[in-house]
Amino acid sequence: IITNTVLSNKNRNVLILLADDGGFEIGAYRNKICQTPNIDEFAKRSLIFNNAFSSVSSCSPSRAALLTGTPSHQNGMYGLHHGVHHFNSFDNVTSLPNILREHGVYTGDECYSTITSDSVRVGIIGKKHVGPGSVYKFDMEWTEEGHSINQVGRNITHMKLLARKFLREANRLNKPFLLYVGFHDPHRCGREAAQYGPFCERFGSSEEGMGVIPDWTPWYYQWDEVQLPYHVQDTEAARRDIAAQYTTMSRLDQGVGLMLKELQAAGHGQDTLVIYTSDNGIPFPSGRTNFYDPGLREPLIIHSPDPGARRHETSGALVSLLDLAPTVLDWFGVRTPRHKEDLWRRDRPRSLLPILNKEPPPSEDEAVFSSQTHHEITMYYPMRAVRTRRYKLIHNLNFGMPFPIDQDLYVSPTFQDILNRTRSKQPLPWYKTLKDYYYRPQWEMYDLKNDPAETHNLHGKPSLSEVESSLRERLHSWQVASSDPWLCSPAAVRDPRPGTHAAACDALDNGLTHYMHT
Amino acid sequence: IITNTVLSNKNRNVLILLADDGGFEIGAYRNKICQTPNIDEFAKRSLIFNNAFSSVSSCSPSRAALLTGTPSHQNGMYGLHHGVHHFNSFDNVTSLPNILREHGVYTGDECYSTITSDSVRVGIIGKKHVGPGSVYKFDMEWTEEGHSINQVGRNITHMKLLARKFLREANRLNKPFLLYVGFHDPHRCGREAAQYGPFCERFGSSEEGMGVIPDWTPWYYQWDEVQLPYHVQDTEAARRDIAAQYTTMSRLDQGVGLMLKELQAAGHGQDTLVIYTSDNGIPFPSGRTNFYDPGLREPLIIHSPDPGARRHETSGALVSLLDLAPTVLDWFGVRTPRHKEDLWRRDRPRSLLPILNKEPPPSEDEAVFSSQTHHEITMYYPMRAVRTRRYKLIHNLNFGMPFPIDQDLYVSPTFQDILNRTRSKQPLPWYKTLKDYYYRPQWEMYDLKNDPAETHNLHGKPSLSEVESSLRERLHSWQVASSDPWLCSPAAVRDPRPGTHAAACDALDNGLTHYMHT
Ligand SMILES: [Ca+2]
Ligand SMILES: [Ca+2]
Ligand SMILES: [Mg+2]
Ligand SMILES: [Mg+2]
Repeated sequence: IITNTVLSNKNRNVLILLADDGGFEIGAYRNKICQTPNIDEFAKRSLIFNNAFSSVSSCSPSRAALLTGTPSHQNGMYGLHHGVHHFNSFDNVTSLPNILREHGVYTGDECYSTITSDSVRVGIIGKKHVGPGSVYKFDMEWTEEGHSINQVGRNITHMKLLARKFLREANRLNKPFLLYVGFHDPHRCGREAAQYGPFCERFGSSEEGMGVIPDWTPWYYQWDEVQLPYHVQDTEAARRDIAAQYTTMSRLDQGVGLMLKELQAAGHGQDTLVIYTSDNGIPFPSGRTNFYDPGLREPLIIHSPDPGARRHETSGALVSLLDLAPTVLDWFGVRTPRHKEDLWRRDRPRSLLPILNKEPPPSEDEAVFSSQTHHEITMYYPMRAVRTRRYKLIHNLNFGMPFPIDQDLYVSPTFQDILNRTRSKQPLPWYKTLKDYYYRPQWEMYDLKNDPAETHNLHGKPSLSEVESSLRERLHSWQVASSDPWLCSPAAVRDPRPGTHAAACDALDNGLTHYMHT
Repeated sequence: IITNTVLSNKNRNVLILLADDGGFEIGAYRNKICQTPNIDEFAKRSLIFNNAFSSVSSCSPSRAALLTGTPSHQNGMYGLHHGVHHFNSFDNVTSLPNILREHGVYTGDECYSTITSDSVRVGIIGKKHVGPGSVYKFDMEWTEEGHSINQVGRNITHMKLLARKFLREANRLNKPFLLYVGFHDPHRCGREAAQYGPFCERFGSSEEGMGVIPDWTPWYYQWDEVQLPYHVQDTEAARRDIAAQYTTMSRLDQGVGLMLKELQAAGHGQDTLVIYTSDNGIPFPSGRTNFYDPGLREPLIIHSPDPGARRHETSGALVSLLDLAPTVLDWFGVRTPRHKEDLWRRDRPRSLLPILNKEPPPSEDEAVFSSQTHHEITMYYPMRAVRTRRYKLIHNLNFGMPFPIDQDLYVSPTFQDILNRTRSKQPLPWYKTLKDYYYRPQWEMYDLKNDPAETHNLHGKPSLSEVESSLRERLHSWQVASSDPWLCSPAAVRDPRPGTHAAACDALDNGLTHYMHT
């Protein structure tokens, strides 16, 4: 899996550009209305993944998964890190920045790794949203911990100058680097800064009282011209919400352009792996916090400076954001014991570097997995899912209660519109009812080829019983391998087998059924 | 509320003797079979509370509540502290040991407190089970963190010697002290040490291979002679389980005797407030993890050396273990801003010192409150409750799912017996069915005078609608005052009002109803 490249490890760097709740409002992903010339230009030099999925549809859990290569139930980040309830990963978790910072770059073959004298310089600008600090430690940090999140995450001029500072320091030290830029765009604005609009689209817009971001020229959109995603109702309120999101996308897009320019100016345009992606789906119904495709499918665009890398091509490979950690380690030539062990196993995170050079043969056997527990502390709604190219199986563990709604979505114009129309029995041109949205069965299975909107639950359908049971077994195996505490929930008690990943599921006889591994 | 005593602050100490899952298997609480001569002798010199309740029926949450005077949802200890999922209190929580250790003893009147030169020496022996370490920091710690829990929590000879060491050091420093002894008895043994029996009743029993605890003479019981609590089925399996629990009670009882002897020998028999209690109900159905009385009602025996203190008397006052933190602070003459503010408010923790000297007039208006969220990480079953002398109202927030069973109870002979009898349709002489036990309605209201076993749910009964709505309002007010994140769950979204305790509950229209404060 080690790719032969013309670069020495000394001259290998990584730049991660992470959107917050970003979706496919991108020209390169065939959105015809939302203008993203900088991302589009970057995509022309890169490989565009059409089937990339997050392992969790929630901010901190997704970031922890990205930075560790482990699902949320394995690294402990069960919900949002901020606020008094701040969820944290377990103390003994290993993260990308810690491996690179502490252990340095390993070189040589798999059997006799040698550590180079140089460690990797790691930096973070913008939204961090994970902890504890000891598990996710960067050499340079400009984050919401000690800074205004809007300044370090949305003020692209400020962010540009921070990136410049980081890159100068890496050059001065003559070290390889990982720079992780956590844009806060296009996240919603929340109630605290309501004056900036639902997506903070007026923050720094040069309108009166909104401040100025010198490097940003806002783009504005007509609400009746936006490209409506199928999972959002077709009303003026929802369309205006999307128009605001588009404007915020213009700040993110120009921020991406600035970062790429800084990279070039620092002399690293030709030796840096650049990854653009997002943590979770857009903050609309069926998006963020959901395991439907709008909640899990992510943009993923990777530029490799390797001369053999594909450019201006798309990949149909089914990949997980869990693959990014092993990809970065592979890029730096690092072999950790866990990643080494995982490399050749089925359904484990794997390096994407080979795909950058050559499209793998399409396979119906590939699968990606997801695991979610909380979002906000009160939003307990654990889900586990497996998705192949054609089918998705979702296990809703707390199906007896309504699907929880986060405060950020609740106060949004789109959700309020659904709520008001439902209450007042006005027409609601939406693909679901609010009641369907709240109440979900324990198991959901969808045929994504014939039903990409996931509206016809095929769970229990006799003609698909073999498909379903093989998906269940595969999901269960993945949960065993990743030590899922919820392995046996809600029908059985997990009885750990000390010293192994394995556990017995002892039935509770509580009237629920659970797939028991035989 | 400051009591006038003959003791100077210099000569005021506190000894807390905390049982783990201990109940009323105590002679002083009129159990005629289980022999506890040491606790009984102590009770003769003390005040016995007949209506003391924990604010949560789970180990770590109860210990955190006891040590902070705040319910679990306010201090963040939502579940068990141990294992990889270790729940922790929030970083900014103030605890009894930290106040006493860091701030010293305040003296003087409420307006012009002055710190004395002496802080209080604080020590812990046995089960700690709370964190983070910075929030619960003792000067001397011999706990499961770094020691075998059975050695520091069940080996009473070892514990005696540790107490001696602590008391010598306090004497040498000539400092007031708080010694917190966390017995691990009579907790169940668990699968890891199954050889010791269900309650570890053979650990150190001098039987072959069981080791020796020199200071312990085990007492043994016939299974057909135990005093069966109403919430346990009348079968041989369950009775044998209780007989084992009784034997373990003899180790706890003799441990209590040893501690009191050490206190006397160190010269502190006449200047120390001694508190015996337990963290949560006994580990049997309807006990630990439940909000029924067997889960929340605790033994509480307090000895005050004050010459005016009542001895060999019982108190019928309705008190909460949340009252212990302000009691200890009051004993040491400490006034913290929060406790000062809370002292005179209704439904807030209060010092029990006045009750030690004089029984308050019986009142139907007193109430105690409870709040629970998890126990094990996967056991999400938040409950909130208010209990007056006559009525109890329980709000089961996750009522759509079965009540969760912890692994420790699951593997117990008593629960296995219920499960097996239910499965094989054998007679089950129990006051409930397993199905009733699992499936609980959103609201439960009981008339404890006419129905002490809490078997007839009076929720919604028209003749009691005023009682119920006043209980709901009172519970809601308590949740507001203690900043409960679950204030609006499961029917509404909590919309915080920054800078205040208050929050609006914005309805979700998910088909559930919630009491909305008007
Ligand atoms: Ca996000
Ligand atoms: Ca306990
Ligand atoms: Mg933190
Ligand atoms: Mg800990």
